[in-house]
Amino acid sequence: MVPLTIWTNVGLSGDDAAWLEESVKPHRLVRSSSATANNLVAGSGDPECQVADIAFGQPDPDDLLASSQIKWVHITSAGYTRYDRDDLKAAFASKGQIFTNSSSVYDDPCAQHVFAMMLMHARQMISTVESGQQASWNYDGLRPKERILLGDNILIVGYGAIARRLVELLKPFKVNIRGIRRKPSGQDEVPTYPIEELGGHVGWADHIVNILPLNDSTQLLFNGAMFANAKPGAAFYNIGRGDTVDQPSLIQALESGLLSAAYLDVTSPEPLPSDDPLWKAKNCFITPHVAGGMQNESRVLLEHFVANIKRFEKEEALRDKVF
Amino acid sequence: MVPLTIWTNVGLSGDDAAWLEESVKPHRLVRSSSATANNLVAGSGDPECQVADIAFGQPDPDDLLASSQIKWVHITSAGYTRYDRDDLKAAFASKGQIFTNSSSVYDDPCAQHVFAMMLMHARQMISTVESGQQASWNYDGLRPKERILLGDNILIVGYGAIARRLVELLKPFKVNIRGIRRKPSGQDEVPTYPIEELGGHVGWADHIVNILPLNDSTQLLFNGAMFANAKPGAAFYNIGRGDTVDQPSLIQALESGLLSAAYLDVTSPEPLPSDDPLWKAKNCFITPHVAGGMQNESRVLLEHFVANIKRFEKEEALRDKVF
Repeated sequence: MVPLTIWTNVGLSGDDAAWLEESVKPHRLVRSSSATANNLVAGSGDPECQVADIAFGQPDPDDLLASSQIKWVHITSAGYTRYDRDDLKAAFASKGQIFTNSSSVYDDPCAQHVFAMMLMHARQMISTVESGQQASWNYDGLRPKERILLGDNILIVGYGAIARRLVELLKPFKVNIRGIRRKPSGQDEVPTYPIEELGGHVGWADHIVNILPLNDSTQLLFNGAMFANAKPGAAFYNIGRGDTVDQPSLIQALESGLLSAAYLDVTSPEPLPSDDPLWKAKNCFITPHVAGGMQNESRVLLEHFVANIKRFEKEEALRDKVF
Repeated sequence: MVPLTIWTNVGLSGDDAAWLEESVKPHRLVRSSSATANNLVAGSGDPECQVADIAFGQPDPDDLLASSQIKWVHITSAGYTRYDRDDLKAAFASKGQIFTNSSSVYDDPCAQHVFAMMLMHARQMISTVESGQQASWNYDGLRPKERILLGDNILIVGYGAIARRLVELLKPFKVNIRGIRRKPSGQDEVPTYPIEELGGHVGWADHIVNILPLNDSTQLLFNGAMFANAKPGAAFYNIGRGDTVDQPSLIQALESGLLSAAYLDVTSPEPLPSDDPLWKAKNCFITPHVAGGMQNESRVLLEHFVANIKRFEKEEALRDKVF
């Protein structure tokens, strides 16, 4: 294959940069001057991006639209809200360009993160931390509230790769699982239902696990009317996107006791301002968009990209193709 | 079978008492006046216990020693330290008495509890609670420390029913597991080694999970010399018995940073006094002996006992026989 130019705005450590440059040979790596260390944040426009063959990182969508040279774009996140635009998709289709993400890098950490939240909820761990901070052996208060997941109903809203991994992790537990997705495949590991029917399933769930991406059909999907369907005492989890939830309605559902707890890795906006009422809402526990974190994250991301380059060279199907 | 007398000092709610009385028929239930609501605490002596055929709950060991009428004792806990006495075992053997515990009731909650602790540790959940209490979106501090269990080495010390359940729960994770037990069976689900070899395996582990009962050979087994073998950064968990750990040595291993964290459901003594230094030890998280808690715990305990009565009537082997 003719050596290609790979533009990247990934913020690379010295070791990672050296490894990547070596690993992509004979292709040439061009590092953007606007690189950031945060693989989730959009880079600014860069004329060099437009003249590359491959863009890797978080390129400016307008650069992608303007370029007729780029053949393939690989982003360093699983979420791709800012690229989920009709004009961009149409341009990619007409120019024969490919868009891939890092979804399979993040399946396992995201699934383990929300699973940790579910077990923390069952085992009353937040209350226990608070008792411990007061050096209080709160046996009588905590023991009667302890639960195991046995027999619980778990509704996974947004049934993609993270959901499938979560289903694997839940296999040794005797729980009941339903999935909600845009288009049930009829081949899913658990019963799945179309997103239009979400309202009819919310009341069944002890655990509502939101893994939705953000788009026109998911924005504020979890609003007051949707929470009103919830089973009293249900727990709500969000590792999808903050804007799929109407936060004032969520706060109300927590304060009224309808929901027993919320565990959120994503909020609107991010970072959540320190004066946002969500921080103080009853039984609301927030992790700061870290569900995808894992040991060696930066290297795993690079390895995933390099493995896709090998497929690209052989004109094989790329992994984690979005459009 | 001739109707028997069943003595119990289990603290029963009205519903549970009615259910139990009905369920043990034609046998007769005698409820001790010294019943307590806590199924872990020893009852005081009761002459009525000595003249019963079956004792259920937490009878006074001296009553058991004195009785030649009792045929079978079933306790409401998995731990049986106060009955683990040579004189009691000898008396039971000579009188043909049977001693069973509620081990299989507690396998799943105990395994889920320590598993929750392991995932909380990997996902930095304690630090996250603390950041959240300060309404701080601590992305930069937390994300680089996030881990998944992938590839971790897990040493389970005390390889019984809880350990086997934990191994089941860990199956979907790609982790390495070794067990330590009094007598490796050669048939265990993971490689197991005799307890005399513990010191040689401690340094291998990223997670040291202590599920040991308390007896002469386990008392203070985790002392300064044992912790000195630990892999730097390992996490220590205890859902066995507090007296298997030398707490000042544990505190030292935490304060020096040798251990990255301790997650303890049992301590010495219990309740842990509010001025005990363990409460304030670095990265030490304490749950107040609640690992066995679950929904419907009291009824599940009764059902387990009643199922054993059915076996006893048919002279079948009892479940969870200890000696």
